[in-house]
Amino acid sequence: MAYGLPSIILVRPRNPLNIGAAARAMANFGFDDLRVVAPHPPVWAEALRAAPGAERLLKKAKLFATLREAVADRTEVLATSCMSRRARALPAQSVKGLRPRAAGAVVFGPEKSGLSAADLAYCGGIVSIPTVADCPSMNLGQSVAVFCWELVRAGPQPFREGAPAAVDDLERIIERCDQALARIGYRGLMDPQVRRNRVRRILLRRGLLKGEAGMLYEILRRILDKPVWGPKP
Amino acid sequence: MAYGLPSIILVRPRNPLNIGAAARAMANFGFDDLRVVAPHPPVWAEALRAAPGAERLLKKAKLFATLREAVADRTEVLATSCMSRRARALPAQSVKGLRPRAAGAVVFGPEKSGLSAADLAYCGGIVSIPTVADCPSMNLGQSVAVFCWELVRAGPQPFREGAPAAVDDLERIIERCDQALARIGYRGLMDPQVRRNRVRRILLRRGLLKGEAGMLYEILRRILDKPVWGPKP
Repeated sequence: MAYGLPSIILVRPRNPLNIGAAARAMANFGFDDLRVVAPHPPVWAEALRAAPGAERLLKKAKLFATLREAVADRTEVLATSCMSRRARALPAQSVKGLRPRAAGAVVFGPEKSGLSAADLAYCGGIVSIPTVADCPSMNLGQSVAVFCWELVRAGPQPFREGAPAAVDDLERIIERCDQALARIGYRGLMDPQVRRNRVRRILLRRGLLKGEAGMLYEILRRILDKPVWGPKP
Repeated sequence: MAYGLPSIILVRPRNPLNIGAAARAMANFGFDDLRVVAPHPPVWAEALRAAPGAERLLKKAKLFATLREAVADRTEVLATSCMSRRARALPAQSVKGLRPRAAGAVVFGPEKSGLSAADLAYCGGIVSIPTVADCPSMNLGQSVAVFCWELVRAGPQPFREGAPAAVDDLERIIERCDQALARIGYRGLMDPQVRRNRVRRILLRRGLLKGEAGMLYEILRRILDKPVWGPKP
């Protein structure tokens, strides 16, 4: 990983050839970190068998049960979408000129359905390859190839100031938020999961630095440490 | 073909999935003209059967016996290569920023071997996708996807002055050259086919306009019309 190329994450891929093709494109452009979320076991076994030019990358690929776990240490998580399905709540951009942060991740959904709303909750933005209106949906392996090409196309990226917060940092903050709200006996109209997703989205979208995340977490910890507040849990 | 996107030409493709994938990527980016040179018949039959999202393009693809016929009406013919094999006599460039002329063509060789020297004789230049040194060779379908993306990436191309000459115009000139040399009883040390390739390369490399090609052809025709020259054929 010469200059902080992002992880490529495939969520529930269905076709072993697509997995092999994605790994091959990564290898062509120097990407090193393939993560796969909940692949169907026979699909994964077959992908490992037949992947000319990408054996090494597939063998050291990391498998995860959920996208949440796959992005735990990632700082900027971008979902890919052909944007034809429906307008999303996330900020969207074209892949053109894309240069993600170090320790970032680009997430690709299952071939037929794309990423679920639950998966999108862990993504800070959507990136799409601008395709023509009457054939918008790209093949998974080809989509990965175009992303990888575009990400290395501009060459090395200048370093940014300050280490960005990883998804795990954000999750700790969200958990503390929940605890604080429970402690003060808060009963909102909003479903708790929807509220958590909104808080996560606010944090993801702001490009939080690691130091800032630590500060927010510390504030919440101190609030929770005050035993005098509200009704006892 | 919104703004003169080039033809995509696959020479002797071996894998039906790759043909389908190439057509799919073309459809994604609005490319319209697929040409296939000497596909193995069962391979082509299978490609037609299984090509989600690219049926229309595959059904109207044009088949040719030779690359010579496939590029007859094309003006700028670019060969693709991963550049790892050997240094070529042709001018080489990166795909980055590539914007070929109207009625151009981008030619992809067979999966294992790449384009032959005979095929390269009809190409005016080589374009490659810069890949990493230890995994230089791209999958055919993914290579087509990256080329198509890069070719539309910059948006519409400004019109050029003067219509460029097509390969057919050049071939007529080369043929007349041969006849003229035969007429004057020329016996060079060079193999006639090598000489023809060299002449073709000179003409291809200069970006000859249609009017210029017409003039050269006319000059040669007039030379040949003089019956007083040299020994009778």
